[in-house]
Amino acid sequence: MKKYCIGIDVGGTTVKCGLFTEKGELIENWEVVTCTDDNGSHILPDVAASVEEKLRERNIAKEDVLGAGVGVPGPVDEAGELPCAVNLHWGRKNIGKEMTELLGIPSKAGNDANVAALGEMWKGGGEGARSLVMITLGTGVGGGIIINGKIVTGAHGAAGEIGHANVEPYEEAVCNCGNHGCLEQMASATGIVRLARIELEKSPDASVLRDGELSAKSIFDAFKAGDSLAAKIVDRFAEYLGHAMAFMSAVVDPEVFVIGGGVSKAGEVLVESVKKYYQRDAFTACKDTPIVLAKLGNDAGIYGAAKLALEA
Amino acid sequence: MKKYCIGIDVGGTTVKCGLFTEKGELIENWEVVTCTDDNGSHILPDVAASVEEKLRERNIAKEDVLGAGVGVPGPVDEAGELPCAVNLHWGRKNIGKEMTELLGIPSKAGNDANVAALGEMWKGGGEGARSLVMITLGTGVGGGIIINGKIVTGAHGAAGEIGHANVEPYEEAVCNCGNHGCLEQMASATGIVRLARIELEKSPDASVLRDGELSAKSIFDAFKAGDSLAAKIVDRFAEYLGHAMAFMSAVVDPEVFVIGGGVSKAGEVLVESVKKYYQRDAFTACKDTPIVLAKLGNDAGIYGAAKLALEA
Repeated sequence: MKKYCIGIDVGGTTVKCGLFTEKGELIENWEVVTCTDDNGSHILPDVAASVEEKLRERNIAKEDVLGAGVGVPGPVDEAGELPCAVNLHWGRKNIGKEMTELLGIPSKAGNDANVAALGEMWKGGGEGARSLVMITLGTGVGGGIIINGKIVTGAHGAAGEIGHANVEPYEEAVCNCGNHGCLEQMASATGIVRLARIELEKSPDASVLRDGELSAKSIFDAFKAGDSLAAKIVDRFAEYLGHAMAFMSAVVDPEVFVIGGGVSKAGEVLVESVKKYYQRDAFTACKDTPIVLAKLGNDAGIYGAAKLALEA
Repeated sequence: MKKYCIGIDVGGTTVKCGLFTEKGELIENWEVVTCTDDNGSHILPDVAASVEEKLRERNIAKEDVLGAGVGVPGPVDEAGELPCAVNLHWGRKNIGKEMTELLGIPSKAGNDANVAALGEMWKGGGEGARSLVMITLGTGVGGGIIINGKIVTGAHGAAGEIGHANVEPYEEAVCNCGNHGCLEQMASATGIVRLARIELEKSPDASVLRDGELSAKSIFDAFKAGDSLAAKIVDRFAEYLGHAMAFMSAVVDPEVFVIGGGVSKAGEVLVESVKKYYQRDAFTACKDTPIVLAKLGNDAGIYGAAKLALEA
């Protein structure tokens, strides 16, 4: 008898859902609108109803679904408790428990960045690894740490919060978190634009970046086209990120680093730029740890949530 | 029937051994001289003979010994393989397997710094925690990372090699590992003396440190006595270490940090100095993570090895 699992990735505007075989083949994915009314109390029931409908459509009995995993945008502790999720208007709740009751299928929850890391390990850039560090370079910088096949959540749900690893304590600009010099201020989509503004102001050099809108994409495009100021900006970005990754390798020594998120669309040139500084600063034993691009894009969350559901 | 376990900590000059109850009470500890002749091939047989003699003396049957753990000064991978241990003249071997055969008692091996971390979690400064980071400030800087009660070894046996976390990429002096700016160059017993030499040369200020021998102890003693140059040196040391610890918390978010090794004999003033910079750089959720002193001193290794033996 074929067995299934379900991956759910709750975001601020839509909830992504995926029906998988237990081997990790995606059978179908779909979306549910996130309704944040009434303190987000409709979100889980809406998703559960949609999953049940999908199972009926496909004549899949609940007994053949091994589990459902739910990735949520907030810290989830070892016991599955979420203290709050600002974007969803949620206060303290245990998502796994609620979803198990709503669906009648054993459910587990995890932080969305951590769950995405698990997805990339299962079927993405880190496929086959048992330990990895995933770095998501989006509006912010997120991360997920997997050791021996399991997500590291941390004592305060803050493991993998590598966007707030400090890389420049004497930075004057303030991070969203209140600290100064977080990796997110340097290596996120907004961070690299910030670095670009500083560099453009400091330097008298001509650059295509002086015209048009600044974005992570325009900066990497200019770099690829040979713009020397863009090269300086990318180099600063890469030094911060490579240095931070080398530090991480001295802590957890993963089998592989996986880089995802919008900024990673720059592709192999990003990996090559970062590798230079990673290898400068990494401990001898870890200098050749592979650094790869994520493969699952926005689907990493549903893959990882489904995998989470399969974990004992 | 009372059950026992054995902890063995192999060092370059002596091997420390401990007989414990399964609850972690130390019944007796003793030492065996480390004989590095013939590529260190006598070390494990010498230890095994000594353990067997001890069991005979106390009329303890091997069946009542649940296991023996061995801490060794080198990287040990997930499979228990040690690629080499320079100080013992050992090449590749599987210590756990060899000791199991020699003793007729199930044996496991781990890296000595990692095993010491496990010991401090079991019966030392981190007692009761399920996750911790231990930092050993000795001749070098060692570390051990415990997550969910288990040692993190890393893909290359380099997890917890926090002495080689890079904290100053533009440092000119070279670390033993070949890199520039490792934590060990700042926060070990030799590292803080190095910082002191730099500070003494740079500054014209009077200081008791200008007379007599420089050591971690003399620097902290002068600091406690109100010497302002010593205060500057301790502050630099503390900034490097506190910054590095904050970074670690963004990666693994431990329940507690435990600081041990010779330099930690400076006591609570060391913890207070480090905490200032830890809290400056740590992510909000982790700012109050306790930082405590190790309690087991040189016995951490035998406690941790014994605990390792008890793990399934």
